[in-house]
Amino acid sequence: MSDYDKFVALNVKIADISNSMSVLNWDQEVNLPKNGLEKRAKQISTLAGISHELLLSKEYETLVKKLQSQTLTSIEKANVKEAAKVLTKNKKLTTDYIRELAETQTLANNAWLEARNKSDFSIFEPFLEKILNLKFKECDLIGYDRHPYDVMLDTYEPGLTTERVEIIFKDAKSPLLELLGKINKKEVPNNSFMLRQYNKAQQWDFGIYLLKQMGYDFDSGRQDLSAHPFTTSLGPNDVRITTRINEQNLYEMIWSCIHEGGHALYEQGLPADQYGLAAGEYASLGIHESQSRIWENNVGRSLSYWKANFKVLKDSFPDRLANVTLVDFYKAINIVKPSLIRTASDELTYHFHVMIRFEIEKALFEKSIKIKDLPSVWNDKYKSILDVNVPNDAQGVLQDIHWSHGSFGYFPTYSIGSFYAAQFYNKAQKDIPNLEGYIEKGDMKPLLKWLRKNIHQYGRVYNAEELCEKVTGSTLNSKYFMDYANQKYGGLYEL
Amino acid sequence: MSDYDKFVALNVKIADISNSMSVLNWDQEVNLPKNGLEKRAKQISTLAGISHELLLSKEYETLVKKLQSQTLTSIEKANVKEAAKVLTKNKKLTTDYIRELAETQTLANNAWLEARNKSDFSIFEPFLEKILNLKFKECDLIGYDRHPYDVMLDTYEPGLTTERVEIIFKDAKSPLLELLGKINKKEVPNNSFMLRQYNKAQQWDFGIYLLKQMGYDFDSGRQDLSAHPFTTSLGPNDVRITTRINEQNLYEMIWSCIHEGGHALYEQGLPADQYGLAAGEYASLGIHESQSRIWENNVGRSLSYWKANFKVLKDSFPDRLANVTLVDFYKAINIVKPSLIRTASDELTYHFHVMIRFEIEKALFEKSIKIKDLPSVWNDKYKSILDVNVPNDAQGVLQDIHWSHGSFGYFPTYSIGSFYAAQFYNKAQKDIPNLEGYIEKGDMKPLLKWLRKNIHQYGRVYNAEELCEKVTGSTLNSKYFMDYANQKYGGLYEL
Repeated sequence: MSDYDKFVALNVKIADISNSMSVLNWDQEVNLPKNGLEKRAKQISTLAGISHELLLSKEYETLVKKLQSQTLTSIEKANVKEAAKVLTKNKKLTTDYIRELAETQTLANNAWLEARNKSDFSIFEPFLEKILNLKFKECDLIGYDRHPYDVMLDTYEPGLTTERVEIIFKDAKSPLLELLGKINKKEVPNNSFMLRQYNKAQQWDFGIYLLKQMGYDFDSGRQDLSAHPFTTSLGPNDVRITTRINEQNLYEMIWSCIHEGGHALYEQGLPADQYGLAAGEYASLGIHESQSRIWENNVGRSLSYWKANFKVLKDSFPDRLANVTLVDFYKAINIVKPSLIRTASDELTYHFHVMIRFEIEKALFEKSIKIKDLPSVWNDKYKSILDVNVPNDAQGVLQDIHWSHGSFGYFPTYSIGSFYAAQFYNKAQKDIPNLEGYIEKGDMKPLLKWLRKNIHQYGRVYNAEELCEKVTGSTLNSKYFMDYANQKYGGLYEL
Repeated sequence: MSDYDKFVALNVKIADISNSMSVLNWDQEVNLPKNGLEKRAKQISTLAGISHELLLSKEYETLVKKLQSQTLTSIEKANVKEAAKVLTKNKKLTTDYIRELAETQTLANNAWLEARNKSDFSIFEPFLEKILNLKFKECDLIGYDRHPYDVMLDTYEPGLTTERVEIIFKDAKSPLLELLGKINKKEVPNNSFMLRQYNKAQQWDFGIYLLKQMGYDFDSGRQDLSAHPFTTSLGPNDVRITTRINEQNLYEMIWSCIHEGGHALYEQGLPADQYGLAAGEYASLGIHESQSRIWENNVGRSLSYWKANFKVLKDSFPDRLANVTLVDFYKAINIVKPSLIRTASDELTYHFHVMIRFEIEKALFEKSIKIKDLPSVWNDKYKSILDVNVPNDAQGVLQDIHWSHGSFGYFPTYSIGSFYAAQFYNKAQKDIPNLEGYIEKGDMKPLLKWLRKNIHQYGRVYNAEELCEKVTGSTLNSKYFMDYANQKYGGLYEL
């Protein structure tokens, strides 16, 4: 066995354990009986410990070191380089730190749940402080050149810096505000027909139809119901998604299916022969999000897409949609309106939710705001930027779970993912003659093929910015998103 | 941390891994998409390897050795003693042997599937030979006093010997043949109404109703559908069962639910605080089977049970069972008739299927029959004992999967389980005044409470025979089964 083969075998072993953890997690969300939770958490943590031990084993470190000076193919080189990066980072985190973080996460998560239920930030405050202090410690342990928050960003979006996010968001903010200002002067389209009673079984069937049309492979995955929709890869040929169905709201199931379907197509398209290695894994959370957003928004909220699918939807619910035209529907699924909750917001105001988070997180890591002031800081920003009054903490600063897990630096990847999506989609439209024509006919194969060839096949051989430059000729630029938004909403709202 | 605490922690770690494997296995049977199979098998084998490494680690061995001379409570002692036994056995099996066995099992299983499909034993023959030779090797590696087959039996039924099985089966064979002879002279009751069309959803609901009535805790488990019904414990508070539904056969779902429910009640009743230790695990396969058989046969095929439940069943299927009386139904669910397939046989002829297997397996380990002669040996025995003509290998020697896994010594536990069931049930009837009266009213709590107190709570602190003696005052004796059978079938068939 060559050193590289040994390196692969160890990575596969670690991937086997981590995919087993994903099975346990998936099962927890979809199947777990009530009383099974405690032991399940313990089982997952046992597997996490074993995988961590393997990653930090002398054997692994020695192999990675040896391979760095050996002659390898370019993909092998990339796999070793990425492994070295992950290893270096992980070695800096002490076992004590990891244990303390895990314990604090559990406590903070429970406190957050209680705080949100009672809409009382003060319950969460001391735990948020603990978890933030641990994250400050993480920044020190890992080390950084310019900004401690860079460490947080790098976890989810390798190579991304605070400075870069500031530039990207600054570029996007004014044109977005300008477009939003114009739209806000117009009448909000009617969407009452989206909120009628829509039967669960028929919604489910329609979702499956859309997933099949996208090219989601049900022989290498499955869809189930869960409280919060998610995608998880349990191995290259077992990529599962979940959805949820609200019988009084047609939006939820449809765009959760398309969104998770987009994530899943990415995972199903990663090179299976690179299982366990960087070349077989997603590039970054931003790139992952770009794959879900392309399908959810650029495709799934387009007129072309619904030219293909509106008739099928109408046939599924003839009583409900009889008098609704394609244009009525298209308008209803693209309503722009400032609101309180990020996850329920439209594709334009969405970015302000993320920008506000980013500003607050950055300030927290600069220690320029106090934790106890978070609710008022939050509410002020929502008032000044979105002109929205936050009625309580539950719908304000406590709305998202991320901070209770210590997931700072995660939110920016959501917006960045949308911007990547627009930039990729713009390129796909140039590369595929008559792309919209295919979509209008329900033929998603050309787009999927393009994504597979240009993005999926590379795994994490390139980081997000490198990949973007390789695919589109330039690094991330929000102007593609603004072009898309101005054109689409200009037409929709007759601006 | 005391040595015993360290020992517990290591056992819990091993149990966490082994329960994780059970989650992966359960998911494979219930959920796995087609293309996920290959990687899933690899993931399970990775976890098996890690668990095996831990079990054979120097650390574990040292602890077990140290603890054997320390002052411990009686349960702690039992846990250490059992651990030492498992360890000693496992240390004798070389890594090479285990790898070769696993590889051969996969090949033999594929060959068996093909052989059964084509009903051609010769396809399976060379693989059966390989796996048998490996099992002979296992007997030599482990070592034995009297009979190599003792090693096989001990895997599933610790302490059970070939000699003991011979005695038990010899005792049972003549009275069983005598009873069967009498029954065979009588007319076979009508059961055509059991084979009508029974709607899947209503069958499912009725099964859930029966499980709830038995006391199966759905907060600590769940039921799903799978090709072959099974029970699996994913932890003390997550014991899952599966069933299958045949719309043209009312038997399958009902008694698979009751059977698996019985297994599951045992697992749900094991002491959760002994998780990962012998005291928290089932005593033997025979005892496990006794828990399923008590519910399936002694309870689930009794008149009392159906006095409680027949009306509910009739209400679920008024069109199908309108003209069927309780007595018609009771007769139909207790038809005795020699047949080809073990899994579809009645509770009397069942034992001849097992006895034939035992005779053949014993002869194989004595090398007194040739593998290539197995089909003719099989067919002769079925003709002479059950007066059944075996039309082909698929319905004969190839019918069961066990040999393809190398599971020799497994079959006897099925009959022994039924005999234990009868002996336990006889004692329960003595201990619980008016037990049948409770059952007639659908109140299964007194019986479950008795099983929990007398059997479940002990885990593997006692081996099967010790437990049986503790509970009933004597070791296993098939006379209890014969008393039960003679009384029940004497009445049913007016013998």
